[in-house]
Amino acid sequence: MKKIILGSACLLVSTLFASAQTKSIAGFSEQSSAQQRQTETTFNNTLSAENIGATIRQFSDRPHNIGSPAGKLYADQIAARLKDYGFETNIETYQVLFPTPKTRLLEMTSPAAYKAILKEPALKEDATSGQEGQLPTYNAWSADGDVTGDLVFVNYGLPADYDELAKLGVDVKGKIVIAKYGQSWRGIKPKVAQEHGAIGCIIYSDPKDDGYFRGDVYPKGAFKNEYGVQRGSVMDMVVYPGDPLTPGIGSTKDAKRIASHNEAVNLLKIPVLPISYKDAQPLLAALEGPVAPAAWRGALPLTYHIGPGKTKVHLKLEFNWNTVPCYDVIGKIKGAQYPDQWVVRGNHHDAWVNGAADPASGLASMLEEAKSIGALLKSEWKPKRTLVYCAWDGEEPGLIGSTEWLEDHQQELQQKCVVYINTDNNGRGFLEAGGSHALTPLMDGIAKELTDPQTKVSLFERANARQVVNATSTKSKKDALSKKDLDLGALGSGSDYSSFLQHAGIPSLNLGFGGEDEGGEYHSIYDSYDDYRRFKDPGFAYGLALSQTAGLAVLRMANADVLPFNFSSLHKTINSYVTELQSMVDDLRDATATENEVIGKKLYQLAADPTLTYNPPAAKDPIPYIDFSGLKNALDKLQKNADSLSSSSKKMLTAGTSEATFNNKLYQAEQSLLLPDGLPRRSWFKHSIYAPGFYTGYGVKTMPGIREAIEQRNFKEAQEQINAAAAAVNRLAEYLGKL
Amino acid sequence: MKKIILGSACLLVSTLFASAQTKSIAGFSEQSSAQQRQTETTFNNTLSAENIGATIRQFSDRPHNIGSPAGKLYADQIAARLKDYGFETNIETYQVLFPTPKTRLLEMTSPAAYKAILKEPALKEDATSGQEGQLPTYNAWSADGDVTGDLVFVNYGLPADYDELAKLGVDVKGKIVIAKYGQSWRGIKPKVAQEHGAIGCIIYSDPKDDGYFRGDVYPKGAFKNEYGVQRGSVMDMVVYPGDPLTPGIGSTKDAKRIASHNEAVNLLKIPVLPISYKDAQPLLAALEGPVAPAAWRGALPLTYHIGPGKTKVHLKLEFNWNTVPCYDVIGKIKGAQYPDQWVVRGNHHDAWVNGAADPASGLASMLEEAKSIGALLKSEWKPKRTLVYCAWDGEEPGLIGSTEWLEDHQQELQQKCVVYINTDNNGRGFLEAGGSHALTPLMDGIAKELTDPQTKVSLFERANARQVVNATSTKSKKDALSKKDLDLGALGSGSDYSSFLQHAGIPSLNLGFGGEDEGGEYHSIYDSYDDYRRFKDPGFAYGLALSQTAGLAVLRMANADVLPFNFSSLHKTINSYVTELQSMVDDLRDATATENEVIGKKLYQLAADPTLTYNPPAAKDPIPYIDFSGLKNALDKLQKNADSLSSSSKKMLTAGTSEATFNNKLYQAEQSLLLPDGLPRRSWFKHSIYAPGFYTGYGVKTMPGIREAIEQRNFKEAQEQINAAAAAVNRLAEYLGKL
Repeated sequence: MKKIILGSACLLVSTLFASAQTKSIAGFSEQSSAQQRQTETTFNNTLSAENIGATIRQFSDRPHNIGSPAGKLYADQIAARLKDYGFETNIETYQVLFPTPKTRLLEMTSPAAYKAILKEPALKEDATSGQEGQLPTYNAWSADGDVTGDLVFVNYGLPADYDELAKLGVDVKGKIVIAKYGQSWRGIKPKVAQEHGAIGCIIYSDPKDDGYFRGDVYPKGAFKNEYGVQRGSVMDMVVYPGDPLTPGIGSTKDAKRIASHNEAVNLLKIPVLPISYKDAQPLLAALEGPVAPAAWRGALPLTYHIGPGKTKVHLKLEFNWNTVPCYDVIGKIKGAQYPDQWVVRGNHHDAWVNGAADPASGLASMLEEAKSIGALLKSEWKPKRTLVYCAWDGEEPGLIGSTEWLEDHQQELQQKCVVYINTDNNGRGFLEAGGSHALTPLMDGIAKELTDPQTKVSLFERANARQVVNATSTKSKKDALSKKDLDLGALGSGSDYSSFLQHAGIPSLNLGFGGEDEGGEYHSIYDSYDDYRRFKDPGFAYGLALSQTAGLAVLRMANADVLPFNFSSLHKTINSYVTELQSMVDDLRDATATENEVIGKKLYQLAADPTLTYNPPAAKDPIPYIDFSGLKNALDKLQKNADSLSSSSKKMLTAGTSEATFNNKLYQAEQSLLLPDGLPRRSWFKHSIYAPGFYTGYGVKTMPGIREAIEQRNFKEAQEQINAAAAAVNRLAEYLGKL
Repeated sequence: MKKIILGSACLLVSTLFASAQTKSIAGFSEQSSAQQRQTETTFNNTLSAENIGATIRQFSDRPHNIGSPAGKLYADQIAARLKDYGFETNIETYQVLFPTPKTRLLEMTSPAAYKAILKEPALKEDATSGQEGQLPTYNAWSADGDVTGDLVFVNYGLPADYDELAKLGVDVKGKIVIAKYGQSWRGIKPKVAQEHGAIGCIIYSDPKDDGYFRGDVYPKGAFKNEYGVQRGSVMDMVVYPGDPLTPGIGSTKDAKRIASHNEAVNLLKIPVLPISYKDAQPLLAALEGPVAPAAWRGALPLTYHIGPGKTKVHLKLEFNWNTVPCYDVIGKIKGAQYPDQWVVRGNHHDAWVNGAADPASGLASMLEEAKSIGALLKSEWKPKRTLVYCAWDGEEPGLIGSTEWLEDHQQELQQKCVVYINTDNNGRGFLEAGGSHALTPLMDGIAKELTDPQTKVSLFERANARQVVNATSTKSKKDALSKKDLDLGALGSGSDYSSFLQHAGIPSLNLGFGGEDEGGEYHSIYDSYDDYRRFKDPGFAYGLALSQTAGLAVLRMANADVLPFNFSSLHKTINSYVTELQSMVDDLRDATATENEVIGKKLYQLAADPTLTYNPPAAKDPIPYIDFSGLKNALDKLQKNADSLSSSSKKMLTAGTSEATFNNKLYQAEQSLLLPDGLPRRSWFKHSIYAPGFYTGYGVKTMPGIREAIEQRNFKEAQEQINAAAAAVNRLAEYLGKL
């Protein structure tokens, strides 16, 4: 085995550093850069794609959701591995709520009888698809319920879809809605349905978004077949994630809990069930009422109507509201120089079913890094800072393991955690990196030095090529062509970085590859090793690339002389958000005035087909001018102080001085951006720059307090939030000024 | 009957003139305006929606394509009606080529056997759908052929689709292509396929464009059911329309003809067949090769692949290439004052099958006008100018009746024809008016005075409301809101105005209503009275509106003191086209330079999935700067002379002088815009401002010589065409200057 690894490693050495080998690494002096590159080459030489594949196979060989026997088994196996690699390892266990289905019934009772199948069949082409112990198709945190009502098709079930329904004279009060998966995180759909008075919610995967329209279906191709169902959580995680009974605190055995899940404000009051397009088709075909707007229609061979009509459905769901153990595996290597500065690296280990892609692919890359770090330790090398490798449980139902651990250790982590580096599912394609924008130069350096396994150019070049090619206007193509630095994305939610970044203000990164690994296996029994090796990352070259990428980020943050935080990059990013928000308000003002003129002249009525029901929209309040000056002034101050800090860091590097307390202050700086009261109506989310959208879910809203107030046309709140963000930016500027 | 007509007419009187009754009519003095309005009210009072419905029913009660027994019967019936109304009527007969099918066979021979049905079934809900004498589903002017080959899906079959195929490494040489109906006139698809070396072409109606995706299918709803097939001509009418054997001359009995249809340059060399989506589905489902780009995919429940693969099809088509009589019905009422100034009004009478919408709906409105004019004649009223009402035969296979008549009488018509006013199929909705832009004020006046039957606002207001509501940006909404005048569309092709306007330079209008009459009946057996009365114009209120609109245009052009040609409007329109063309060249220059940079840096390859075939596009020649100054100078001169002519016309009206020769010159002015050599590669098309697109068909290309040269990146020709257009505009300016 070892020979093969070294053999393939030799090939890799020549391509590990695509370029820039003569340049210093961000945060390292010239001298220590050379040393660091040697460490990184050694690190790389023990990574093995083949081994990553074997690890994916191991950690997807049976269903292993939180609370399952295999969940415990895998936690133990991961712990054993980390120990074996030289990590000081333990399993921290939390006691958390986790509902599983007891009864699932969906039937159409009128105009024809149809009983939904609610079952994905085993396939001979997929070795694990027929295993015992699979969680059935369901949405965790649906309410218990037994409801019967008229059915209404609500497109993706977003607020704008209900505006459209109102125009067509359809309301959902007392009815059951059927929504398509897509365009938002799934939990938004039942939440908005509930807000509009629906009594139940069905979510299905339309073949246009996730099925034969996209490509050949499984097992012939990668896309969702007619029986495939996306499981998933519908906890209102944009209010708070983690165990719903213990917001803000770790759900240790004796933690003070909310008395009942019925009192948790982030849980639904209506039943929700995900179904396949095979089960959706008879329901949709039976709908009457207006024909759905063109943009709502999917790829089923029928005319999409909205309903209601004679179509009645009966939805009955009951759950076991059990408390289960949540096993977080935590492995540490003590820092030789700064043991109280922690570089934290994590990936979850729980899956909905077998989870070869989600999460085993990211987990395998992380364990491969740990293995290589273990090998480094056997040489002279020691990390300056402490490394903490974490495998989280309970990510799928609500980021539970990571959130509980963060909440449990919040004070210590806010003191010690230099950075949290997250991965999750991984596949073939392009580097997709998101995170705290002060870390842009770190990731920019890595993306420019590492080589894409397929094209042999740097990760940056390949990602940039995609950006250029996908740009839809000449202007945006030119902008992309002129990009010199990596575009670090802003983080919303959907994986375990959320509590670190958005609750605790700890600098975070989320890394992965994708774009050439599309398929329909997500959260189904077909997210299997057989699917993964055929469609997601054949040969596991991108598993290796992820180990390299995250590994370099870990090693550089662990051993940097001066931590590579660049607040000038952060300033530039925030400034671009604010410019965007200002335009957004101006555009909204212009659009609202125009729209009100159209409404006032009754042009909607005149343009509408008089034979169809049509309720024109109501005029909206004119958009006031609001005051961004405080925020702009704060940004000016931030720019000045950030630029002068950058100079100090450079000087330190040249002088070869490195100070623990200076570094300490650098990584704690982002906490200045936390809002003392959190975001309106969801105080758990405290970051003033990044949050998941209240009505989009995973999708990020940058400057969330301001942006969402504008979107909701609440300009009093928008002004308050501008002021709150200005105070946060001022705090950061002043903090940096004192360094 | 008469009582009822008067009764309903009384109701209409109050709404005929929505507004502006106190303003003078364009082209009329104040005094004659009042008299004209009285005439128009009387005219209107004898129009009857009910009667229009009965006429539609009569002229769709059996299949009546050119050359059929009912075609002759209908011509005779129309002639009898016109005679009865007081028109001096005769039938002018041409002898024209018209192919009908002898053999139609389409079968898939591999990987599975499938024989196409090629037949629309009779429906009990559609009384005429089971009649004898229906033309089978076919494309007229397909070549005879018996071909077998691999099948390739080519999207809509347009040039850009073949660029995409080249990128994917697929060519069609020696293969049979299957293209979707839509996005271009159908004849473009086999023409482009033939240019690329295909040996056969199948065209089908995808349910996304024309089927259940759009709405409920016939007979439940209006949209195309799985068996529906769109017949239609694939003659290359953008080269020349009419009988392919007699380009430029009338196909009278003794006309000199091209020896054989095989020598006609506007006929295809490959066989073409239209099919239903039921017949297309097994073929498309069997295709292998790359998955089609997302924009290519339709609404069939399958993954759209491009092919080729094991899918082989056999297409065998044979036609009877018969010569048939073409019966144009021509009815005249001699002008009392200017008998040699003719206002020509036309609509075709032939259909592919029953043709209730196409053409009986427009024909019925025209005959209703004729009836009312007949009633006017029985009072004191006489038209000043001669009225010529024409019902054309052979429009469907290639605008044959109108083209042969125009070519036969070209010199006389260029002398006498004041305007040609065309209608064709009509339906519920919005006024859609296109034509020579010097006639903008005429149509603007009519659109503002007439009332929309459903909303009771003016036709202009309703059409403008739609424009505002459909605008996709705030800027375009504001532009539409600020519009004070009717947007007269530019004319491409697709109906009988083509030869008048584009070959002879006779000012033309094309009028109709639509937008709330969508369906899938077009050129199928289901374009029936049963379909029409349910889905196209229930109650025939828009049939009446069309009679009013076209009738007022006829009556005003017939009796105007000074013909309402406004060349300032024309100047404004041409000027906007030229501005657009200049931006187009600049944008293309910018886009090409950027694209070449992307190609030069090999970014397409880097962004592409390396596991799939991908041929990057080749760099294109940089776009030179070209000289629009001659054209701009000519436009300046046109503006000056047009403005001063407008003043003269006004003065004449105020003075109450009206001169036959001045009017003569006004309506002949547009002929100055004809290009002596016609357009490149299609000299039959002579208008410098309007033509159907060489690669779009019906769709108009304004400033066609210039625009198409730019689109084809032929900048030498673009410059030549700018110069030719400048000469034409100069000719018009000088001509007007001498008036």
